[in-house]
Amino acid sequence: MHRRDALVLGATGALAMTIGEAVARTPDDLTGKVRHVVNLYAAAWNAADMDAMAALYTGDVHWVNIVGMHWRGKTAVDRAHRVFFEIMFKGVPLRLEEIESVTPLPGGAVVAVVRWSVGAFRTPVGEQVPPSRDRMTLILVPDGDRLRIAHGANVQIDEMAQRSDPISPARE
Amino acid sequence: MHRRDALVLGATGALAMTIGEAVARTPDDLTGKVRHVVNLYAAAWNAADMDAMAALYTGDVHWVNIVGMHWRGKTAVDRAHRVFFEIMFKGVPLRLEEIESVTPLPGGAVVAVVRWSVGAFRTPVGEQVPPSRDRMTLILVPDGDRLRIAHGANVQIDEMAQRSDPISPARE
Repeated sequence: MHRRDALVLGATGALAMTIGEAVARTPDDLTGKVRHVVNLYAAAWNAADMDAMAALYTGDVHWVNIVGMHWRGKTAVDRAHRVFFEIMFKGVPLRLEEIESVTPLPGGAVVAVVRWSVGAFRTPVGEQVPPSRDRMTLILVPDGDRLRIAHGANVQIDEMAQRSDPISPARE
Repeated sequence: MHRRDALVLGATGALAMTIGEAVARTPDDLTGKVRHVVNLYAAAWNAADMDAMAALYTGDVHWVNIVGMHWRGKTAVDRAHRVFFEIMFKGVPLRLEEIESVTPLPGGAVVAVVRWSVGAFRTPVGEQVPPSRDRMTLILVPDGDRLRIAHGANVQIDEMAQRSDPISPARE
């Protein structure tokens, strides 16, 4: 359906429109629904409110965190987050920088890439991580008139490596 | 649809079945289709055959790589991979360790988490990366009777951090 969107938009005369620009024109209600979930996620994080965070997940959510742990199912994803908030993330500020893309999937699901700014924290093995940024892939599935998180995959941005990005600027 | 699967499976008497076990019982044809794409991906990587790799993508594929670069659309994802194979990945072996999960999404799409073993390579800024493992989230969408890659998000596994995984063993 995404290619169809691009065609429709192209037919309006915006022939040079890139995928990124087309995504930016995804209907407001879809982007709005993604923004709603993302704002709730940030609010839950910043309040260290794990009940509110868990309420955003589907029952079979999977999560891959920035060091490559893979948690399967709401019970595991919730438990892991509770442990890590207790020992690592409580009080660490999370701020939305940008919803970089919102791409519809068949059946009403959406994949979004969201860029976060994260405050400094100390890992369980004692390593101090300075303030950093993450690019988080979220798969969101419809549940009534809202979206729930069916999958998260979070990549910490290596700021030095960004200078070697072959696609410049990052937006294609 | 996943919860429905779990219910169906539960009704067979396997009441203690976990999400992970349910996923392992995803119908063979779906897992088989994922495995087919993953095997083609590995073959394309190991042959440094960028045409074969690009043939696996949808037109509006997005990709987030292990250092957090975000490429949008097939043209950008393909171009970036060509550059990085030329200067970094050509000849670096990629081996599938495991398709860790296959989770159906509405509309016939699938999200899979795949664990790879990657040979040593040298980054564009001259950093030597020893052999490593990645956990790659792939969103696959139906195109006729096959699946195409609509999104990839790749996280390098921090092996030391895995010892601090609150979910033990990793499989819930």
